[in-house]
Amino acid sequence: MAKSLYSGEYHTLLAVDCIIFGFDGKDMKLLLIKRGFEPAIDKWSLMGGFLRENETLDQAAHRILHQLTGLKGVYLEQFQAFSDLKRDPEERTVSVAYMALIDIHSYEKQISDQYHAEWFLLSKKPRLIFDHNRMVKLALRALRYKAALHPILFELLPAKFTVPQLQTLYESVYDTRFDKRNFTRKLMSTRLFIKLKGKDKSNSKKGAFYYKLDRRKYKLKQEAFLNFVPKAEKFL
Amino acid sequence: MAKSLYSGEYHTLLAVDCIIFGFDGKDMKLLLIKRGFEPAIDKWSLMGGFLRENETLDQAAHRILHQLTGLKGVYLEQFQAFSDLKRDPEERTVSVAYMALIDIHSYEKQISDQYHAEWFLLSKKPRLIFDHNRMVKLALRALRYKAALHPILFELLPAKFTVPQLQTLYESVYDTRFDKRNFTRKLMSTRLFIKLKGKDKSNSKKGAFYYKLDRRKYKLKQEAFLNFVPKAEKFL
Repeated sequence: MAKSLYSGEYHTLLAVDCIIFGFDGKDMKLLLIKRGFEPAIDKWSLMGGFLRENETLDQAAHRILHQLTGLKGVYLEQFQAFSDLKRDPEERTVSVAYMALIDIHSYEKQISDQYHAEWFLLSKKPRLIFDHNRMVKLALRALRYKAALHPILFELLPAKFTVPQLQTLYESVYDTRFDKRNFTRKLMSTRLFIKLKGKDKSNSKKGAFYYKLDRRKYKLKQEAFLNFVPKAEKFL
Repeated sequence: MAKSLYSGEYHTLLAVDCIIFGFDGKDMKLLLIKRGFEPAIDKWSLMGGFLRENETLDQAAHRILHQLTGLKGVYLEQFQAFSDLKRDPEERTVSVAYMALIDIHSYEKQISDQYHAEWFLLSKKPRLIFDHNRMVKLALRALRYKAALHPILFELLPAKFTVPQLQTLYESVYDTRFDKRNFTRKLMSTRLFIKLKGKDKSNSKKGAFYYKLDRRKYKLKQEAFLNFVPKAEKFL
């Protein structure tokens, strides 16, 4: 290759870090690994690695996540670049963070014992290396922002679900309790759900009706501004 | 410096590109420069340059914008990283785009003839180099998203303004016409404005009342989800 006109310019290491939130039907969790190389070997970390010459950032994020956890086919979204000069003590490294929210049960076979990835309750996550704690904090904020407006959480529910299950999902994402009556009314007003005939009686005699997602409306409303969460700014 | 443990890893050029939208009281515009170096010298471009060893991406964005246009003190927000392999034909370069929306009149003294920056009507912008057209398109989408929810546009208005001026501002950002009565009702329902006694009679005999921003409420509502724009997803 001919010498580039840019060859005098500074070249930097560029890393990708993957922030994977998961929901297991009850709790929000965060996927972490023990870092396998120096510096900070054996410390808890997001799934990270370096961009290569022949791949885009999106491709690097998928490759790195797969190499370190076995996860494939996850919808990863670019989140933010972090560029503090000393964020990696070894050498100046700019990192582009990616994030995803997945149904833990759908992917549990992929994350096998072959890998050393573990799910942590968000409230009980260990201290992470470098600026990864800050990345997680900002990514959670971004997730709450998006979930307050758009129907992005419903993919995490089983095909048939009850209103209490729906409420548990939102309460775990926002780490709060929502008023039951207001929450139900707000959700139902979106008309995204179809009431089924059967009831789940496992938690009460009266039982809770099953619902399913109205897939057609759900597709139409993916981008709509729906305001699922009252005063969502409180949770950011 | 000791040899880094990472030294075998690929190092890349990292650029910053600044997307500056402006409002002049009537139209939305985009600030562009003629690129000063090869490749693509003398072609219209966003304000771009390379990250240096001793600066963060935020610092690089401010430095580059100032060097190329004279602009200082603009609130630049990190937008998105672009990493297609061939986006710069000279050498593989990852670019982190930044964006801002400014009041053109407040900054017109800074952008002096010493620089070669020019404002273009969004509808009449020239073809830009590399993937800059795509960057602008996605940034405009992000701006419309944010302005639909949060009171970020009011900084662009004079201290005293009329409802027609407010409507012009929103119509220029969304490149559309809003129904006058619905738009007014929606905006007034946010209670962010204080009606003044005087009227602007320059456009009609009846005149239009002047308003000012309720600064206290405005500060409180900066993060609130307000839905200023009906069916905002249409404009994304």
